[in-house]
Amino acid sequence: MKDEKRVSAAVIKRLPRYYRYLGDLLDTGIARISSKELSVRMGITASQIRQDLNNFGSFGQQGYGYNVESLYKEIGRILGLDRSYSLALIGTGHFGQALVNYPYFSRRGYNFTALFDNDPEIIGKTVGGIIVFDVATLPDYLKIIHVDIAVLTLPGASANNVTNLLSDTGVKGIWNFTGSDLQVPKGMIVENVRLTDSLMTLSYMVNEDEILKRASI
Amino acid sequence: MKDEKRVSAAVIKRLPRYYRYLGDLLDTGIARISSKELSVRMGITASQIRQDLNNFGSFGQQGYGYNVESLYKEIGRILGLDRSYSLALIGTGHFGQALVNYPYFSRRGYNFTALFDNDPEIIGKTVGGIIVFDVATLPDYLKIIHVDIAVLTLPGASANNVTNLLSDTGVKGIWNFTGSDLQVPKGMIVENVRLTDSLMTLSYMVNEDEILKRASI
Repeated sequence: MKDEKRVSAAVIKRLPRYYRYLGDLLDTGIARISSKELSVRMGITASQIRQDLNNFGSFGQQGYGYNVESLYKEIGRILGLDRSYSLALIGTGHFGQALVNYPYFSRRGYNFTALFDNDPEIIGKTVGGIIVFDVATLPDYLKIIHVDIAVLTLPGASANNVTNLLSDTGVKGIWNFTGSDLQVPKGMIVENVRLTDSLMTLSYMVNEDEILKRASI
Repeated sequence: MKDEKRVSAAVIKRLPRYYRYLGDLLDTGIARISSKELSVRMGITASQIRQDLNNFGSFGQQGYGYNVESLYKEIGRILGLDRSYSLALIGTGHFGQALVNYPYFSRRGYNFTALFDNDPEIIGKTVGGIIVFDVATLPDYLKIIHVDIAVLTLPGASANNVTNLLSDTGVKGIWNFTGSDLQVPKGMIVENVRLTDSLMTLSYMVNEDEILKRASI
């Protein structure tokens, strides 16, 4: 694959799902699987699976299917899970603390290496074995210590101020839980997690019959 | 609108975004806005906005634009935010506790009314003013108390066992943080939040140049 070719966002979004399914298969002792079987389990067509995986090289053998372990490892490698990532969390409230204490992330190589907050009650305390620093020290910290990903778990109103502090620091990605849309410099990647939007969508669906009935009056 | 007509999932997923933007406009004192201005702010075409909103009736006036407050209220009504929802949380660990303690949900009418766990250390404790019950009592609880949405913040391995307990109980929706794909009875709505997939997608993007270079060797 030529390195200027970009893989489509839809394919990238499906890779963690393949990785999860293959990991589950491995856990249950399944050593190989046809693209057809995998497609039934995942609810994706077999040709979609072949197409997706062909983006990254050739996997599987006609008549044999996929070797689950090697495909799992390969997708992990494609996802960049064969290296570790340094995460700085900004906003060490309940939600930020829950992320830091979630063991799965560090098992996958995502390591929280620094925590920040602006609340004097929280600064200096330890969460998951890591001391919480004053957010005012963030720019100086980032001059000295390399961070791959900033995790924003602070109120939306401060989100863009903190984002400004991240430019030209080596931070390449922002995992954004603030609910605000961030203005970022070119080349900085933002992945938004919008819990409130997600809950509103769910409650709409739960309530849809009643809502549409009302709208038709 | 006829009540058998369903609104597309893509439109529904955009509604909370409209709601958020209009709320921000209201907070900054903007009383009216053209679909063109709104489109520039949101990065959606003006015709897309008109199309989306036309699903629910006619809004806005030629030459005047939208009245921000009335459109905000109307979208809130469409989203079903003019009523409240009862949420039961199953899995009261760090992450579940963070959701319960997040004040925004109850301000929007999403009320956690019951918490469950299977850990004797947590059962009987109080989180956000609510006592944590033994998950074994969940079926009996749901016979007596109406719950709209079950929030699953427990390990993936137990997710489908708990989901089975929810059928025929009046619970219509599941907000699923477990990372597992749920098998649900017809009519039950599932909204998945996959934090690990989200983080993997981000780290892929952050690392993409290097990954594609490696793949081309």
